[in-house]
Amino acid sequence: MSDSIVSRRRAIALAGVGVAGVAGVAGAAAVGSALIKGSAEPEGPSPAEGAVAFTGEHQAGIVTPAQDRLHFVAFDVITTDRDRLIGLLQDWTAAAARMTAGRDAGEIGAVNGVPEAPPDDTGEALGLPPSGLTITVGFGPTLFRDAAGKDRFGIAAQRPEALADLPHFPGDTLDAAISGGDLCVQACANDPQVAVHAIRNLARIGMGVVSVRWSQLGFGRTSSTSREQATPRNMFGFKDGTANLKAEETDLLRDHLWVQPGDGPAWMAGGAYLVTRKIRMLIETWDRTPLAEQEAIVGRSKGVGAPLGKAKEFDEPDLAALGADGEPVVPTVAHVRLAHPSTNSGARLLRRGYNFVDGSDGLGRLNAGLFFIGYQRDPRTAFVLVQRSLARQDVMNEYIRHVSSGLFACPPGINGDSDFWGRALFS
Amino acid sequence: MSDSIVSRRRAIALAGVGVAGVAGVAGAAAVGSALIKGSAEPEGPSPAEGAVAFTGEHQAGIVTPAQDRLHFVAFDVITTDRDRLIGLLQDWTAAAARMTAGRDAGEIGAVNGVPEAPPDDTGEALGLPPSGLTITVGFGPTLFRDAAGKDRFGIAAQRPEALADLPHFPGDTLDAAISGGDLCVQACANDPQVAVHAIRNLARIGMGVVSVRWSQLGFGRTSSTSREQATPRNMFGFKDGTANLKAEETDLLRDHLWVQPGDGPAWMAGGAYLVTRKIRMLIETWDRTPLAEQEAIVGRSKGVGAPLGKAKEFDEPDLAALGADGEPVVPTVAHVRLAHPSTNSGARLLRRGYNFVDGSDGLGRLNAGLFFIGYQRDPRTAFVLVQRSLARQDVMNEYIRHVSSGLFACPPGINGDSDFWGRALFS
Repeated sequence: MSDSIVSRRRAIALAGVGVAGVAGVAGAAAVGSALIKGSAEPEGPSPAEGAVAFTGEHQAGIVTPAQDRLHFVAFDVITTDRDRLIGLLQDWTAAAARMTAGRDAGEIGAVNGVPEAPPDDTGEALGLPPSGLTITVGFGPTLFRDAAGKDRFGIAAQRPEALADLPHFPGDTLDAAISGGDLCVQACANDPQVAVHAIRNLARIGMGVVSVRWSQLGFGRTSSTSREQATPRNMFGFKDGTANLKAEETDLLRDHLWVQPGDGPAWMAGGAYLVTRKIRMLIETWDRTPLAEQEAIVGRSKGVGAPLGKAKEFDEPDLAALGADGEPVVPTVAHVRLAHPSTNSGARLLRRGYNFVDGSDGLGRLNAGLFFIGYQRDPRTAFVLVQRSLARQDVMNEYIRHVSSGLFACPPGINGDSDFWGRALFS
Repeated sequence: MSDSIVSRRRAIALAGVGVAGVAGVAGAAAVGSALIKGSAEPEGPSPAEGAVAFTGEHQAGIVTPAQDRLHFVAFDVITTDRDRLIGLLQDWTAAAARMTAGRDAGEIGAVNGVPEAPPDDTGEALGLPPSGLTITVGFGPTLFRDAAGKDRFGIAAQRPEALADLPHFPGDTLDAAISGGDLCVQACANDPQVAVHAIRNLARIGMGVVSVRWSQLGFGRTSSTSREQATPRNMFGFKDGTANLKAEETDLLRDHLWVQPGDGPAWMAGGAYLVTRKIRMLIETWDRTPLAEQEAIVGRSKGVGAPLGKAKEFDEPDLAALGADGEPVVPTVAHVRLAHPSTNSGARLLRRGYNFVDGSDGLGRLNAGLFFIGYQRDPRTAFVLVQRSLARQDVMNEYIRHVSSGLFACPPGINGDSDFWGRALFS
């Protein structure tokens, strides 16, 4: 890990030499050391600054304890050349392995000795530690068959049934321009500059093969994916994701998160399906709502985050309990009830969403909300069930608008040096 | 400082009690303690988590060591009632004093015992430390006389001459919808959730008096304002702000940053003028440019950040030096030369800009760039001079577009409990 950090830091000095030519290699190393010493950084990386392993059975960035910041991007593939697409996935895998280890995406100086070549790294993360960066890739339905029904890459037969287009939900106000996509990349890190740098360099590497369809920054995580993490708050001011699937719950993850052998085409075993929803929150309206009403809508107390009628955040909601007035303590249309597994045939998913603010909306309001990210073994029996329940009855719908939607099949993890994202799909 | 943190954390427990009514005050305190103990946070706040003093001769958030994250907002005043505007500035000052100390903006539970009232804090920062939050307020030219020439608040005579509308610069492609504003608020913090919470609550408090005109999130600082800080990098991958004015340079700050007695109307003494420019960077084009050309455009090496021909970042550029070819080592149109005080009659300003990525632009590119923030004693002899020089000759203009512009007079600091932003202006 500290080797990796030294690598990106050493690149600073080397880049300075390669071009300005003002010092020998020894001098450059001295400059590099001075730079590190002169900064206010501690000697070693903190846990939040360290590296997350890139290879493994599953892709990193799913059960990895949710990092604080997000940059998510969806791409359209603009070539019909299968080999160029495969080449890109290979190049992306190599660059992601470097960047998640805290290195640059490629050489920063003269590339292969050609000074006229643009740098193979854009530079804005030089000197920054790995920062827990994870890069997670998914394949959209349109990669298998495009809008015109064309099988551009000869993989239509490999499309899993679980990657079924999401139905229209009541109240959906989706904007096609910020929905869908042939490929997606989720970059999460504890430093937003590191997440942005990763996406920007993958887009750079993909020039001529892919085009950015839409992209979303998230400034704060709204879910925990590990019991080690405190539960964060969403833009309604409530704790979010208390009952989320957690990395430690391996039996539940097997049943609800990871695609199992025999679930569908073999290339997806060990992967997971990803649903994204950009949910605009009408925070100005919410902020005029009394606290008691907010809590009745959510079904939890705002302060502690306890289910109504309970004292502590992690207490199980008692959905059967009746109050002195004979009414359910947790209202019949409370969000916590409608989203609960018992209301949805046991459906569970792993959420790792992020708060966003995208400036203002031209109507005097902040354009704020939640970028929902949900991973699951099969969306048809997870997200779709829960969202049907919420879309039909949730009182919270008065305060939210679903404005974008994405669906992606995220293949299993990278297994060794010759592996790449989608190898099994394209072989 | 630690008292303040306890205050916001205690509010969590109290809010839980006030509404859910599941425990007495003693029980609530126990829940609060359990919550704190159960989290992964260390006992005391780190320096980045601590509080910045709210009161002082100057507003905080100008020479304060630049925090990592920004939420900036410009408001239109939608009332013509002078007293309501003054009341808002008083309310804002009180709420800002609380929030910068790590407290909520107001009571989170039943307000003044009225359970039907909406909460006086929106809740998303509950449990978070002060995080170095600063809140800095400025008054735009249109507050003194609106677009129709009307003196809505009886302060037209108090408009400083230094608050002269900025001229049109060559190449400007400004969008009026995200430019200008009667009031601005800059919230900087080391946790974006804390910065967003501050702006959101000031907007909430201002409902009916002000309306959000535009707002901007910045994910990473691009300047240092203290010698303690390492120089960060902008989205061109270069170190930015190396030659910035620094908090330690008190003589320079007196001459170039702070409005001095006698400079204009008395109410601005101790204040500073703020210019904002949203600068879209065409990063895809930049990324296709050879490293040597990027460095010639900037006038510094990309790695170390040294002026061309020098070895170290903080070496002074030698603008007179000639290379073996008889040409200037720092090209005549290099950014570092055109922005240098010696090229601009000694003009200097304090920059504290931020990197931004606002999704994508619908043309397959990331919408990324620099949100420039510059403070100065008089924009006519600082920003305007430098920007004229840059707009006319800077080769970097091929890679950037100025898309928004703001100008604000930021009054001096808050001086004690009965003071408020603009007290001297309105008295």
